Amino acid sequence: MVGNVKEFIEGVDFDKGGGLVPVVVQDEGSKDVLMLAYANKEALRLSFETKIAHYWSRSRSSLWKKGETSGHVQKIKSIKMDCDSDTLLYIVEQVGVACHRGTWSCFDPESKGGRQK
Amino acid sequence: MVGNVKEFIEGVDFDKGGGLVPVVVQDEGSKDVLMLAYANKEALRLSFETKIAHYWSRSRSSLWKKGETSGHVQKIKSIKMDCDSDTLLYIVEQVGVACHRGTWSCFDPESKGGRQK
Repeated sequence: MVGNVKEFIEGVDFDKGGGLVPVVVQDEGSKDVLMLAYANKEALRLSFETKIAHYWSRSRSSLWKKGETSGHVQKIKSIKMDCDSDTLLYIVEQVGVACHRGTWSCFDPESKGGRQK
Repeated sequence: MVGNVKEFIEGVDFDKGGGLVPVVVQDEGSKDVLMLAYANKEALRLSFETKIAHYWSRSRSSLWKKGETSGHVQKIKSIKMDCDSDTLLYIVEQVGVACHRGTWSCFDPESKGGRQK
């Protein structure tokens, strides 16, 4: 990893949330907010390194490469940190759909099978 | 409040986060993600009732009407819940700027004094 990525990761305040930070996930093209997930330091490192979004699954207590089974991966376009250093924003290219219900966004149950209009 | 708002609020899983849920805040016009904040049930109720975004300030441990001092309020356009019922999305019309640093978005230190291009 290049130095500024290491510096970025070290700058994230993981302590406030017990090792996790919330990650807002936004589709680059449509700018739709797709979901909110959580990342630990390793998930963030892997997201930078592989350019595929990784999270920490709180329900399974394990590292989670989103789309590993479904193929609905999220290609990382950029990663931003907020002013308090305790929240991340992944800007992604969503392959397929983001939600396990089969909808484009976890916030829109009407967006069945594809992106919102 | 109308019945479906009461039903919406009752449907939110505040228990998972100890009475709080994360709120992603997105500007309606630009679709920029402005910030992440937290709401308890009362803040959500007030957001629906007054059509101005309310949160729970974790640092001050108090209800927080954003922009009360600065005038940089967020006019609620719609409120959405995610598929797990544990995260909210406020779609807002941001008056002024969202970030206390004077930037449009808490995620973009370059967006000084106005919205992102």
